[in-house]
Amino acid sequence: MYEHVTNLRVRYVEVDSMGYVYHGNYASYYEVGRTELMRNLGSSYKKLEDEGVLMPVIHLECHYIRPARYDDEIRIVTRIQKFTHTQITFSYRIYNQDNQLINEGSTTLVFVNSQTMKPRRSPKWFAEIIEKTLTN
Amino acid sequence: MYEHVTNLRVRYVEVDSMGYVYHGNYASYYEVGRTELMRNLGSSYKKLEDEGVLMPVIHLECHYIRPARYDDEIRIVTRIQKFTHTQITFSYRIYNQDNQLINEGSTTLVFVNSQTMKPRRSPKWFAEIIEKTLTN
Amino acid sequence: MYEHVTNLRVRYVEVDSMGYVYHGNYASYYEVGRTELMRNLGSSYKKLEDEGVLMPVIHLECHYIRPARYDDEIRIVTRIQKFTHTQITFSYRIYNQDNQLINEGSTTLVFVNSQTMKPRRSPKWFAEIIEKTLTN
Amino acid sequence: MYEHVTNLRVRYVEVDSMGYVYHGNYASYYEVGRTELMRNLGSSYKKLEDEGVLMPVIHLECHYIRPARYDDEIRIVTRIQKFTHTQITFSYRIYNQDNQLINEGSTTLVFVNSQTMKPRRSPKWFAEIIEKTLTN
Repeated sequence: MYEHVTNLRVRYVEVDSMGYVYHGNYASYYEVGRTELMRNLGSSYKKLEDEGVLMPVIHLECHYIRPARYDDEIRIVTRIQKFTHTQITFSYRIYNQDNQLINEGSTTLVFVNSQTMKPRRSPKWFAEIIEKTLTN
Repeated sequence: MYEHVTNLRVRYVEVDSMGYVYHGNYASYYEVGRTELMRNLGSSYKKLEDEGVLMPVIHLECHYIRPARYDDEIRIVTRIQKFTHTQITFSYRIYNQDNQLINEGSTTLVFVNSQTMKPRRSPKWFAEIIEKTLTN
Repeated sequence: MYEHVTNLRVRYVEVDSMGYVYHGNYASYYEVGRTELMRNLGSSYKKLEDEGVLMPVIHLECHYIRPARYDDEIRIVTRIQKFTHTQITFSYRIYNQDNQLINEGSTTLVFVNSQTMKPRRSPKWFAEIIEKTLTN
Repeated sequence: MYEHVTNLRVRYVEVDSMGYVYHGNYASYYEVGRTELMRNLGSSYKKLEDEGVLMPVIHLECHYIRPARYDDEIRIVTRIQKFTHTQITFSYRIYNQDNQLINEGSTTLVFVNSQTMKPRRSPKWFAEIIEKTLTN
């Protein structure tokens, strides 16, 4: 199954007073994961935006297993879990520098027209890229 | 069933380039909801911290129904969904100023010792407050 | 001199691993301060946006005097320091619940056309509101 | 003069409804800049924390010249501007992928004892590293 790996370093601003990455910040780590997955497929969120397609998130799920701390180097493993032309679900596993699983989650996004903000199908070229990835 | 209502106004910093509240920010709206629920019960997260008890989040779930926009006045309705002495689950519904449901979600937190960061049971006084609330 | 007072409570997400409000978050506290000042004058940032006027910040200055902590109730005192039809400078003083000055700062914003993102003069009705306030 | 260059890519979460990086987020870009500068000198903020030294920011200044947008690759050039054993000032210039200067700023930090939160002098080993850098 196709998956993409992105590394990033935890920033001071992302850590809360427990010394742990604030739980809400994993949403943006996931965002970095799928942004880089899409870039790697030759697509990009920015390219979709330029074509008038936005992708708001309709569902988010995070399961916190171990904490991440300031200056940790974490590894985000992103997969396309499901694609239906109107929705796409990405799943994520995040590991720390000791290769321990620290977080698992998923986000489901829909395609909307950026003028009307109404749901629409994904652009054909985008669907082709995704489907090709899923069948490989 | 006991529930607590908190109102807040969406800040500019919380909105993304779609003009919608960034999906990751609902985690902190939920946090405001349960903070105020606990304060209203005569307890507080701060009081727990002063006693050496921290409450990291182990699970988060958000379902996005309608967008919230800059300067919207939103209403967070928070409930205690489940309490087991080692975990507590809060559920949330968020409404906009037109009384439309815009978001639903939940967070599960555990009790940990702030010195060892190991799991522990909730303090007795806290358990009593929560259980009294749940049986009313 | 006209000034506007806004109260807010420090959120968990805003605090860093020192237990202090992260220094970058004062920018959004200032934003809340000037948003509420403008609302109180019968104007609003949202109203300007609806007329096609955006107000990006071109200068920010923060001086940190005492820390703010989780759950603190802080008081933001906002003033219009200078207005020139193309720029507006707000100044801020923030106090904690013990009435101690914890932070001072300022932000300068320009008016831009939301289509072209080019600088423009402030709308007349906005200038009149501000000038009336400054001369009172 | 010694300077350190760090590259990063603008995240979706960092952009506001104007499509620009929210002005308050430059504080965390600066933080990434000085974190990497210190790591490159063989020191680190984390190492200081482990020795019981914290470095709260007492002054921040940002001058916004051009906007940064989602997915932009920006370059942060960080310098040590001043060091006095009780305070350290870093200055920053940020460039976009077209090599245009988009932002300039500075932050001043003090050294405090992490137990008492009282001011203290910088550790000797840290002062030696910084002074060696400044005189080269």
